[in-house]
Formats: sequence, C-alpha cells, structure tokens
Amino acid sequence: MKVLVVGGSGYTGSELLRLLLSHNKVEDIDSTSRTYLGKKISSVHRNLTGFTEKNFIEFDPEKTDADMVFLALPHGKSMQAAPKLVERGIKTVDLGADYRLKDQSLYESYYLKHTSPELLKDAVYGLPELFRKDIKNAKLVANPGCYATAAILSLAPISRMKATIDLKRIVVDAKSGTSGAGAKPTETIHHCEANNCMTPYKVVGHRHEPEINHILSRLVHGVSVSFTPTLAPMTRGILSNAHVFMDSDTEAIRKAYVDFYKGEKFVRILDDVSTKNVAYTNLCDIATYFDKNKGRAVIACAIDNLIKGASGQAIQNMNLIMGYAEDEGLKYIPYHP
Amino acid sequence: MKVLVVGGSGYTGSELLRLLLSHNKVEDIDSTSRTYLGKKISSVHRNLTGFTEKNFIEFDPEKTDADMVFLALPHGKSMQAAPKLVERGIKTVDLGADYRLKDQSLYESYYLKHTSPELLKDAVYGLPELFRKDIKNAKLVANPGCYATAAILSLAPISRMKATIDLKRIVVDAKSGTSGAGAKPTETIHHCEANNCMTPYKVVGHRHEPEINHILSRLVHGVSVSFTPTLAPMTRGILSNAHVFMDSDTEAIRKAYVDFYKGEKFVRILDDVSTKNVAYTNLCDIATYFDKNKGRAVIACAIDNLIKGASGQAIQNMNLIMGYAEDEGLKYIPYHP
Amino acid sequence: MKVLVVGGSGYTGSELLRLLLSHNKVEDIDSTSRTYLGKKISSVHRNLTGFTEKNFIEFDPEKTDADMVFLALPHGKSMQAAPKLVERGIKTVDLGADYRLKDQSLYESYYLKHTSPELLKDAVYGLPELFRKDIKNAKLVANPGCYATAAILSLAPISRMKATIDLKRIVVDAKSGTSGAGAKPTETIHHCEANNCMTPYKVVGHRHEPEINHILSRLVHGVSVSFTPTLAPMTRGILSNAHVFMDSDTEAIRKAYVDFYKGEKFVRILDDVSTKNVAYTNLCDIATYFDKNKGRAVIACAIDNLIKGASGQAIQNMNLIMGYAEDEGLKYIPYHP
Amino acid sequence: MKVLVVGGSGYTGSELLRLLLSHNKVEDIDSTSRTYLGKKISSVHRNLTGFTEKNFIEFDPEKTDADMVFLALPHGKSMQAAPKLVERGIKTVDLGADYRLKDQSLYESYYLKHTSPELLKDAVYGLPELFRKDIKNAKLVANPGCYATAAILSLAPISRMKATIDLKRIVVDAKSGTSGAGAKPTETIHHCEANNCMTPYKVVGHRHEPEINHILSRLVHGVSVSFTPTLAPMTRGILSNAHVFMDSDTEAIRKAYVDFYKGEKFVRILDDVSTKNVAYTNLCDIATYFDKNKGRAVIACAIDNLIKGASGQAIQNMNLIMGYAEDEGLKYIPYHP
Repeated sequence: MKVLVVGGSGYTGSELLRLLLSHNKVEDIDSTSRTYLGKKISSVHRNLTGFTEKNFIEFDPEKTDADMVFLALPHGKSMQAAPKLVERGIKTVDLGADYRLKDQSLYESYYLKHTSPELLKDAVYGLPELFRKDIKNAKLVANPGCYATAAILSLAPISRMKATIDLKRIVVDAKSGTSGAGAKPTETIHHCEANNCMTPYKVVGHRHEPEINHILSRLVHGVSVSFTPTLAPMTRGILSNAHVFMDSDTEAIRKAYVDFYKGEKFVRILDDVSTKNVAYTNLCDIATYFDKNKGRAVIACAIDNLIKGASGQAIQNMNLIMGYAEDEGLKYIPYHP
Repeated sequence: MKVLVVGGSGYTGSELLRLLLSHNKVEDIDSTSRTYLGKKISSVHRNLTGFTEKNFIEFDPEKTDADMVFLALPHGKSMQAAPKLVERGIKTVDLGADYRLKDQSLYESYYLKHTSPELLKDAVYGLPELFRKDIKNAKLVANPGCYATAAILSLAPISRMKATIDLKRIVVDAKSGTSGAGAKPTETIHHCEANNCMTPYKVVGHRHEPEINHILSRLVHGVSVSFTPTLAPMTRGILSNAHVFMDSDTEAIRKAYVDFYKGEKFVRILDDVSTKNVAYTNLCDIATYFDKNKGRAVIACAIDNLIKGASGQAIQNMNLIMGYAEDEGLKYIPYHP
Repeated sequence: MKVLVVGGSGYTGSELLRLLLSHNKVEDIDSTSRTYLGKKISSVHRNLTGFTEKNFIEFDPEKTDADMVFLALPHGKSMQAAPKLVERGIKTVDLGADYRLKDQSLYESYYLKHTSPELLKDAVYGLPELFRKDIKNAKLVANPGCYATAAILSLAPISRMKATIDLKRIVVDAKSGTSGAGAKPTETIHHCEANNCMTPYKVVGHRHEPEINHILSRLVHGVSVSFTPTLAPMTRGILSNAHVFMDSDTEAIRKAYVDFYKGEKFVRILDDVSTKNVAYTNLCDIATYFDKNKGRAVIACAIDNLIKGASGQAIQNMNLIMGYAEDEGLKYIPYHP
Repeated sequence: MKVLVVGGSGYTGSELLRLLLSHNKVEDIDSTSRTYLGKKISSVHRNLTGFTEKNFIEFDPEKTDADMVFLALPHGKSMQAAPKLVERGIKTVDLGADYRLKDQSLYESYYLKHTSPELLKDAVYGLPELFRKDIKNAKLVANPGCYATAAILSLAPISRMKATIDLKRIVVDAKSGTSGAGAKPTETIHHCEANNCMTPYKVVGHRHEPEINHILSRLVHGVSVSFTPTLAPMTRGILSNAHVFMDSDTEAIRKAYVDFYKGEKFVRILDDVSTKNVAYTNLCDIATYFDKNKGRAVIACAIDNLIKGASGQAIQNMNLIMGYAEDEGLKYIPYHP
C-alpha cells in the first residue's frame, strides 16, 4: 500500500509520517511540502533521522499514484485538491475543516467560500466511534477537529440517556497544549509567552463550536453546546470538561457511558482522567461525575490533540477504509511518567 | 509595627514573609513553625538568604507581643489560636478556612467540627473590593480562598446588572498552578506527574464551592455556582472562566464590570487575560465576553493564587486594618516575559 | 517467555512493564511491589489501564518461575536477590548499581557493604554497544546508570583516536529530567520547586562518576572524567556535554564517531542533538564539535534517561541474552513535537 | 530625571521599563520602537497596563532631551546612535554588544564592521562588581552579555587566589532560559520545540566566549575560558557551571569568593544555587565546590538573564552614574516558589 501525506511539514504531518512509518500495512510513504520541497523530510522532522531517507516532493493531485492521500493542509486548501483525488478514486482523508460541515453556509460563515460544495454530501465525518459504518465506505473522510473530537465523544452518550437534560446550557471548557496552534512560530506560542501560563482565547465563537453542534445534533436533537478553549503550557493534549445540567445520578451516568463505548478499543471510561495518560496515543479517556445538589454532570475527557485529535484518528479512518484492524499501527501504550 | 506569621514554612507563609520584608510600615517580623522550630527561616526559604537572619520561633498565642498576626495554618488549626488572639486584642488575619463561612453547619459539613463558633459572627470575610468597610474595623479577618477570590470577583458585578440571569446554571471552570497544592511533596504535584499535563480534580464538591456561594449570595440573592478545578502545569496562577447564561449584550456587560471596579487599585478590566500578566502581583485581571447566539457570558479572571489569592490579599487586609494605603507594600508591576 | 519485574512501582518498573507489554516475544509478565502488594498494577500506573489486569505480587527469588528477572530495586536490595536467581539459572538484569563496579572497595566507598562480592566477576556491564558479546552469555547483567550510559557512549570512541588527548581534564556536564530522581515525591522534585528552574546537585562526587571511570578505563587507559549533574525542568531526558581537550580537527573527530558506531541501531551521529529527538525511545544521539583555537572537543549526547538510560537498555540486554533481534520491542520512532 | 529606552518592545526593553516605572528617582520614561511606533506601550507589554499610558515614540539621538538613554538594540544598531548621544553629553548605557570589546578586530571577527571604533576607548564595561569606579565616571557604558556576566562573576575571584590553576582548561557550561533568545518568535523557541527539552547550541564559538576572555584577562593574565551554552525549558535564568582544574581545597576556594565579594549587595556566596532563587531579581548567587581527587573546582552561578544579565545591571549602572544608591529600584526579594 502506498500513502501520500500532503503538507507534511506541520505537526499533524509529522505525526502522520511517524505513525505510517511504523504501520505494518503501509509499504511506501511520500510527503509533499511547498516550503520544504526537495529537502529531506528528516531535516524538518529531525526525530525521523534514520527512519526515512526521502525528500519532500511536489503535490499533483492529477498524478499521484498513492492508494490513499492524507491532506494536512490549512482550511481552504484541501478543497482545491480533494475533488480531483475523489474523481480519480483515491481514498482521501482530509485533516482540515473543509468537509466537516455539511451545511455550506455554516462553513462559509466561519471559514471562507466553499469551492467544492458538491462533495459535502459525500464526505463522511471521520469519528469512528460514531460513524464507523459510513467511514468504511467513504471516498472522502473529513477528519474531526481536535476539540470537536473530545467534546463530541464526551457528549454523544447523553443521546441514549433517559434523563431530563438542559440541552441549551451545556458548557464545554477545554484546555489545549501548544501543539494545537501548529508548527508556525507566533508570539502566542513563543516559549516565554506560553510557558508557566494559562490563557483563554477565542473565548466565544471558536470554529469548533459549530462543528460540535453540527455533528452532535445528529445524535442529540436540539443540543446547543457553548465552547471555550484555553491555551495550556504543555506540548500535547486536550483536557475537556463538559458541564451538563441534568436530572440523573452518578451510577446512571457512568453506566450510560460504559455501555455506549462498550467494545471500543480507544475509549476508556475511568474514575479520573489526565492528559498524561493518553499522551502520544490514540486513546480517549473519559470520566463522569455528578453533583446531586446542583444537578450538574461533568464529563472530563482527555485526548492527545495530535493523535486521537488528528493524525491517529486519520490512521484509524484509513484502517477502516482499507479493511485493516481498526487499531493497526495504533497500539501504543501511554507513558508513565 | 510588629508582625507574626504563624506557620511560616509553607508557600503562603513564604509569600507573607517576602512581602512583609519589603513593607515600609513593618518594622519587625517573626515567624513560627513547628516543623522547623529553631532553624533559620532562610534555610527553608532560601530565596530569603540575606534578607532575614531570624529563626523560626515557637507560637504562643498567649504571649506574642505582635501588633498583627497572620495565621497560615491548615484548617482546624486556626480556630485553636484565634480566640486567644482576638481576646488579647491582637488584630488577626486567618489565611485558612476556619472563619470564612458564617454558617457553622455548612463549615462542619465540608471541614470538621468548629471549636470557636462564637467568633464566626465577628470574623469579616477579607475580600477588600467587596467588604472594605467591615475589614477596616475587623478584629479577625477570614482571608478568602484562592479559587473563591477569583470566582467571587468574577461574579460580584452581576449583582448590579439588570439582565435576566440564569442564576442556577453558573459554571466556574478554574485552573490552578501547582503551588495551590501547598509545599508538602505528594505524588500529584511531583514534577514528573504534573509537568506537561492537565488533570481535573475534586471535579464536583470542592470546598471552595460553598465558600463562593455563601459569600456571593450576600450580593446576588439565590445564586448557585457550580465549580470545577483543574491542576495546570505552572507554578503560580489561577485562571477562572465563569460561564453565565443571561440576556444581555457585550457592551452592557463590559460597562457593568468597569463601573463596579471603578477606582479599585488591584482590579483591571481588560480585553483579554492571562495568568502571566498578574503573576507575582496582587492584581486581578478580568475580561468579559458575550455570545449573543447562545446568550452566554464568559468572565475570564486571572490572579496569582499565592498573592491576590492568599498572602497579598492578607497584606491588603492588614493595610486596611492599620489605616495604611491599601496598596502599601503591594505595588509590584507584573513581568513580561 | 515469562518475565518478572521486581520493584515495578517505580519509574523504571513502569517503563519495563510498558515495553514488555508490547514486546512480541514476551508472553507473560508479572511484577512485584512491597508497597503495592496485591493492588492492581494499573492503579499505580494508570496509563496501563486496559493493557494489564494483573496485580502486584510478592517476590520470592526461590520460587519464581520466570525465564528472566529484571531487578528494579534500590541499590543494596538487588544483591540480596541476585545470588539466588543466578544459582537457579534465571537470567537476571539488575537495573540498580550493585553489580556495576567490579571493584568491591570502590563500590563500598560510594554505596554500602557488598554482600555478594563473589558475583561481581560474573556480572556483565550491560552496555550493548561496547560489551555485546559478553552480554549474550551473561547470567547476570548490571544495567548501566543513566548518566553513565550517556557519558560512556560519548567518550568510548576516543579510545580509537590517534589524537593527543588530555585524559585527566575531561569534564562531563550533564542535565537530567526529573524522572531521574525517581517516583517518590520529595521537595527537590516537587513541581513548584523544579518547574522553570535549573539546579546543579551533587556537583562533585556523584556516584556515576566512579562508574564512568571504572568502565571507560577498560577502553581508554588512564582516563579520568570529572562529572557534574544538573536537574532540568523536563520529565524525560539526559543531555550530556563532554568537554575534551585534544589535538585534532572537526572532521577526524566526526569520522571516529561515525566509524565507532557503524551499524549500531540505537546510536545516531548527527549535526545537533536535543533530548526531544530521543525522548520515549532507546536512541542515543551524539553530535561532535571542535574548537580549533582552544583545542577543545565537545561531545553532546542525548538519551531518554528511563529508556536508553534504564529500562530500554535492559530490554536490549534481554534481547541479546535471549537471542532475539536486538531492537525487538524497541522500534519506537521519536516524536515531533 | 528623564530616561529614554530605545528599542523598548523586546524583553530587555520590557524589563527596563518595568524597573524604571518603580524607580524612585526616575520621573519620566519614554520608549522608542520602530515596529510599534505610535502604539501604546501596554499593547505590547500587557503587564504594564495601568502602569504607563504612553505610546512608543520615534528615536532621534539628535533631539532627545533625556538625561539617560538605554540602548536595547540589536548589535550593529547601537553604534549608529551612541556617538551622537555621547557627543551631546547624554549618559548612555548600551545593552548590546557594540562596545563590550575594546579590541576592534576581535569585535569585527565575531560581529560586523565597527562604525565608531573611536568610542571603544571611552566605553566602560558595565560590570559594577569589577569596574565600579570607572562606571561612575563613564559617558558610555557597555552593559555585559548575560552569559558573560555569569561567567566573569564566577571566575573573577580566581585572580586573587594563590592556587596553581590550569588557566587554559577552564570550561564554562551554561544553561539559559528561552527569554535569552529574545522576543521574536522562531522555531527554536516555539513552545512545542523548547518545552520539556534541553538543546545545546553554538556549542563552540558563541559570541560571549571572546567577551568572557577579553574582560577576564584584565584580571587573570593568560586565562582562556571555553564556553558552551544550552537552551533550557524555563522562561528566566542562567545557570552556569565553571569547571576549573586547580591545586587548592574546599575552604580556601570558598574563602576567596567570600572575601572577593564582601560588601556586594547583589552577590550571595551560598552552599548551593538554583535559578529560582534569583529569578526576577538583580542577584547573582554563587556556590563553590572542590573535588580533591581530581583537583577540580566547580563554581556554580545563577542569575536572571534579563535582570542581572541585562536590564537590572543596566539600572545598577545608571545608579552608579547618577550617584544614587547602587540598589535603588533593585531591592526585589526573590520568590519561593
């Protein structure tokens, strides 16, 4: 099997390459980069020295002979390439936002003008725990946003609960490591500015909020999640607290979550979560809490933003599409410490 | 003026000593410690080498000749000492929880049996921005909890707003640096465990939740705040996001906050907050946001947990009690970076 | 194959368990702990939840039926167990210091009285890049110290150089992440104390100094290395700078290192090193520099202190002893970021 | 007194502004910036919100009416402005490298062509502990480099020792926080890249090496220091280990250091050092160690790179020039934690 990672110089590209290089079913991996065209991949990702001798190549969607293409591009760029790839029958996983929202005008109000809206109906939202069957048959997978992955996996099980839930007052307060901001240096993620410090950003109106609601409302009619992210001084990880007012109890909530994720290889329902227990893996850890006095449930969720929140999930989607074991190439055990 | 810091080996003790050593009105400072009795203060707080030559002394509330005593003790210990100090007319600031809740049974349901309930009515909650007048005449000040300081200052201004507010669905999602867990080494705050990691703890039922509601309800009748803390990989700081569903608009909220804190020396109403902009100072930075679509306001607040959240606020209370300028000894400008 | 990890609750135990759980040749893994006897392994190492259901068991060297035993014990404890294991023909890798120094009196001057000195002659120092042949036939392997691994691999190639080297003025200035101090919480590695801070410790006389010289002098007659460690605010990694005054040139030094480590799977000779490029892997990255003006070579070396500096190297030794591929279970690619 | 900070948008500018705003003798402070001309100072340094309402102004050395000018500019830029300032009799402290080396060709071999070499003879190297008398009468002070400050203060006392010292084999292995790399975002100091990681850089040939030797050789004839820096994952601080081979003993070395720095307000000779104990202050902590076996002394030194290593030392120089108490505006006590 031959794979192409388009836009391989960023952090999601980096993780895709690392995971693919250890994936037993993948025989050949190439990667493109406009900025680093012709340079050794290992000159950008020095960690890969000794693991690949290849150079970054040019991307031509009309000519690539890959069996599968991962698009790790800024939003707006994927939709320039995806139509041709799909037309040529090349299975495509887009790690950007271009095909996550089926609603063109919603996309355009948060991003920019969509140039291939006809593909929106074919694109499958690549959250395997919820949409596994569709993904297996997808030509084009829209890989979820990192925050959206945590928030949606945190809240999906309420769709099966019998509790009275205040669906309009759900708050997701999430914290992300700095790798979520990408590989390009900026003042915000300068070590001096981000180290030893917590900073909320895009406190209202973050782009993952419509994604969360758009997807979640397929499962939970009428849901309205309010989302706020905060930048945390760590390299990897998202820690997301979902606050849900409901009429339930501790055991019922726990049971709903255990049942919902029964048999899932990457979701662990635990007593407590911490980003360190999922870092560098495709795991999603979830813990549920309930305050009887206030009728408030809290669903705490931890993922690695670059793996379950991006590249690992993309490989999981690839495995589904290709008919491999879903955890092929993703059987990493987390570290302690 | 002579000051005694009781329990000076911890982090709040450390910061009290540092601030007092630079305070122009304070002439003599002693500190007690059971663990380090007789040892040089600077052998525990090496930063103070060259700034004090004193040793930790024994604490005897019956004999101390200090004009003011700061109790930096675990909860349950302050109430053993405070009655004698108050009886002897020594102005006392308790940095613990023993006198924060006027309601004895509420205190006892979250802490332990109260042994000097008769003092509860005299104790003044030491949040100067709200209770300045009472503090000036207090014999005993109950210095607020760190999370409670951030949450209450974040929410107090809604008491003057004309908006329709969902008072029962307020969520405060706060993040604290590891110094909030104290100086005693434990697994949770082992560097390896806390570094590069976010971990929610006491997700429901944290002891500062009743404190927040107990105090805030004096200003906002019927308020019910739900509180969740998360441990963040930084030494200092609390970042608190208060999510409030209300019928209002961006400008009205901002104006309410600006008006409420007009003239306050330590509260800054800004466009954005970050713990780094208040670290090592007594400042409290607040930013307000509003999402019209969802009717959600977010009040982000940053303080230094050991200063505005503990020792700095204690000095502020001392200044009020002694009739000094409120910012005497607290005029520190934050650092960048 | 059945493996026993003795003392599995610490950080080297944790990493041994993680690596063994992913090792294709290992069928059964048990672990002992006195402190956590009978408790679930995953209650101590929460990362392992879902990967092992076992409990910590008791250690009895007379009865264990493991094919191989890893001793992850404090120094002084291994020598109580090793003689019996060796007598029973169980292949043993000791991750402690008890069998690293062949010279009993040297050991005793830095540690404590040796109770099984007769085994010292049989024990093989487990640095595969230097002593591969002996390790293959060893009954008892003394796994190297973390700093010693970095220092010895940094300096071994000078044994083949023709340059005039000032063997008595070699300085190794090394920095370690806090996991090197172990899992037991202490003030030194309290997050508040270690975060955002560099602190030299055991500036002269560190126990790894005699180990470095003892082993290195087998290759380089008359060598005398001076060693100083510094605690660095990171979880994993050792960065070691070896300063060597010699009469040589940039290319000759580089060539000597490339030649010396030719064919080694875990040593990369690079232009620059950084602990992030080896973290969580068994790799050892080395870069060489030379200042012609001052006749000073610098050999910079980065390893993960818990993997190449402890548990990974122990697995590498196991692979050699058992006749597996040397990198079996150790083929991890480093991360970026 | 009126002060102008030229190039106030960087980190040394930031710290100069902060320190000057709290300095009792300074009445008026302006700052220039080409990038942020006309913008509020507090929009760049948000920490200063509420402490200054001024905007960045343009720099015109011909017109400024400041009593003292601090040049916080990249090397090469100071020498364009200094001649005019000196000609106009304005006391000037240059925080850049342009006037640190009296030897024009040495400067040019490490930096670029010098355009005002005639001023080199007038410039005084601004290390008050060594050159206090000259600084008091200086028109132009060349403020030392951060690493140079630590290294020179670490080694100056050997000039008074009677020991036999191997002056050609002195190694200074130093570690710096990321603020040493400046405020401009780059890949090296991207949080993701620098966090949790140690990386040596400019391992041989760093520009502070000639500065160290140039200045130190005035005190210690024939000295030759070899210098290597490493980037450490902390915001502030330099930790420098100087390794010196000599024939001496522990007490004699300690005594030499205590005597040399007797009466100095900012140098503390301690048993151990740590960057946290000097962070955010103008202090320089030094500890001395000696290994009798190997004849190696280690001088460990900790400073805050932006304060004693830059802006604090600049204020110290200003105080000397203006006849103020040397610690005016610099009496900050370090923090714990």
